[in-house]
Amino acid sequence: MVSKSRIYLDYNASAPLLPKAREAMLAAMEIDANPSSVHAEGRAARSIVKKARRQVAALVNTKDDHVVFTSGATEAAVLALTPHYSMGRAPVTMSRLYVCAADHPCTLEGGQFPEADRTLFPVKRDGLVDLDQLNALLSQHDHSAGLPLIVCHYANNETGVIQPVEEISRIVKANRGVFVLDAVQAAGRIKIDMAKPMADYLIVSSHKIGGPKGAGALIAHADLMMPMPLIRGGGQERGHRSGTESPVNLAGFGAAASIMADALADWDAVAARRDRLEAAIAVIAPHAIFYGRNTPERLPNTLFFGLPGMKAETLQIAFDLAGVSVSPGSACSSGKVGQSHVLNAMGVPSNDGAIRISLGLHNTDDEIAKVIDIFGEIAARAKPAA
Amino acid sequence: MVSKSRIYLDYNASAPLLPKAREAMLAAMEIDANPSSVHAEGRAARSIVKKARRQVAALVNTKDDHVVFTSGATEAAVLALTPHYSMGRAPVTMSRLYVCAADHPCTLEGGQFPEADRTLFPVKRDGLVDLDQLNALLSQHDHSAGLPLIVCHYANNETGVIQPVEEISRIVKANRGVFVLDAVQAAGRIKIDMAKPMADYLIVSSHKIGGPKGAGALIAHADLMMPMPLIRGGGQERGHRSGTESPVNLAGFGAAASIMADALADWDAVAARRDRLEAAIAVIAPHAIFYGRNTPERLPNTLFFGLPGMKAETLQIAFDLAGVSVSPGSACSSGKVGQSHVLNAMGVPSNDGAIRISLGLHNTDDEIAKVIDIFGEIAARAKPAA
Repeated sequence: MVSKSRIYLDYNASAPLLPKAREAMLAAMEIDANPSSVHAEGRAARSIVKKARRQVAALVNTKDDHVVFTSGATEAAVLALTPHYSMGRAPVTMSRLYVCAADHPCTLEGGQFPEADRTLFPVKRDGLVDLDQLNALLSQHDHSAGLPLIVCHYANNETGVIQPVEEISRIVKANRGVFVLDAVQAAGRIKIDMAKPMADYLIVSSHKIGGPKGAGALIAHADLMMPMPLIRGGGQERGHRSGTESPVNLAGFGAAASIMADALADWDAVAARRDRLEAAIAVIAPHAIFYGRNTPERLPNTLFFGLPGMKAETLQIAFDLAGVSVSPGSACSSGKVGQSHVLNAMGVPSNDGAIRISLGLHNTDDEIAKVIDIFGEIAARAKPAA
Repeated sequence: MVSKSRIYLDYNASAPLLPKAREAMLAAMEIDANPSSVHAEGRAARSIVKKARRQVAALVNTKDDHVVFTSGATEAAVLALTPHYSMGRAPVTMSRLYVCAADHPCTLEGGQFPEADRTLFPVKRDGLVDLDQLNALLSQHDHSAGLPLIVCHYANNETGVIQPVEEISRIVKANRGVFVLDAVQAAGRIKIDMAKPMADYLIVSSHKIGGPKGAGALIAHADLMMPMPLIRGGGQERGHRSGTESPVNLAGFGAAASIMADALADWDAVAARRDRLEAAIAVIAPHAIFYGRNTPERLPNTLFFGLPGMKAETLQIAFDLAGVSVSPGSACSSGKVGQSHVLNAMGVPSNDGAIRISLGLHNTDDEIAKVIDIFGEIAARAKPAA
């Protein structure tokens, strides 16, 4: 059991389950039949799924039936990143995938596209998509083989940098492309309105907004064109995704979406805490390098920095021993710690790596003060060696 | 909320969550970090996943690292049913999929195989695989293009009929094929020992054994050859399945596997209850037709019958109104009720469909007595119309 006195500052890896999400899950456990069953228990399970769909749709201001529930954001990404779409019964081919070089591995791996049919598009040193280069790449797309499919993150999981998604969308549309937006880190933290011109498809994750792990969604802007199903079988999710739905997970996902939709204003206080922590780190360690700090928009909760001369791993372990959970880069497969591919994509040298601190709505001023003290002690101990 | 006084006899659609599985999930909710995170919370989450892997492996007597967790059985099926396998770095091609005609839709839909590369193999009128025909089909397989991949259910979800898996395996091996066994309905109800010559891959589902929905596994007999990953990204599950694992779901899955492994002897009592119910139905409705009753082996909990002159749907609704949950055929996508494709595959006429009654370990003698009374009343009311 992990001590309750620890300070958890790794919300971009996973947000602890919200109490209301937990409550909704416990209530759903009391029913827990197969939502496809035609008896009373089945109908009750089905109504839980329906409510969750409404709640998740509301988070991004779209229609319920544009939401396809998946087992998580990675599955949603692989579902969307396919050459094979259909519009009604007519097949539509995406002949090339354009992926942002600073994307999360779940899209960077290219989904169902073979490597030969993928092109990376760059970010600039500030972490923002290089719009000119994206436009140049897309303008060379060969439309005779199919449409260009573009995928990019809304907010970066390491730096917190928010991409100019409306401008990206405009470039994609000008080049007759289809745009998949990975909104995993943005959803619930900044306002997302799918009614505005934005992406054709949005990817969201339950456990990044305080819902349970094991749920996510691919949300379509319209229901005209959809990717061919990745998981075929019983025909759930109107045929877009087979497999028995989990009313328990979806109840938690829906509850979290609902809470986060109502709490958007509370992130200003989080940003203030983040800024205070960032300023204190800069005072304690004047040589610290902050990444993504000076972009026009950044997630309110994220802070990413390196200490030249101290490996990020060492710093993370020191924090961990002191009871503070932060992340060296991102956490995307068992215990793997390596170079930050995001900093690499930004063309920023980072031999010692960087530490990501990501706050949640529930971190307190007191916790931030303690973390500042702890960082002061770690930095003081490290000095002789520096 | 569904009344607690109802009698739930639809375990083949979904088994209600076991209290111990629920407990394990609640404990896991207290940690609930990303199992890939390197801090204390991450390590705690990782150890939950590890324990669940050991418990699920033990259920079928195999090694922990032969278990690949998925979001459910359908995903596991689509993962396994692919033309693209690899042995180390060497690709191995499955050039044709042979599917049992009485399989569940999650394998019947053929996974990643295009329709042209799929062949159905038949069952006989008793629901058992026609071994001679299977052998004849496989002996004509063209090995120059790749290996034959064979998929079949261990126990049928509608009739409960248990297939002669050792004989099927022998035929598959004699024809140099690869055998995927859908053990969703068999696991936890009959002893499964992967150390014996059986299948190359086993599919299991959490929610059919009393664990939560949203978890399943593909379990390999050895770790030499594996299907290429369906869901790529962060590299979880040793690269075989990406996406943040759900320690909560897996804790519940593991606990359920552990309980069911210890409770195998208790199914004799369930079989006695099923037999009593079946005998009573035959007395009340002498014209009832029982399917799968006379095969050498049948699941201890399943009973499948039709009443000529009364639509299965009508009978199911009558049961539902009386507080008893049973299923007209299988429940595999939202509220869909149709012809039983299993009976069609058996070549059995079933214009009025059939009712599946599937018991769990926790149904009582008293419940069965009540269901017999209720069926008596339904049958009496129906008589004038017959």
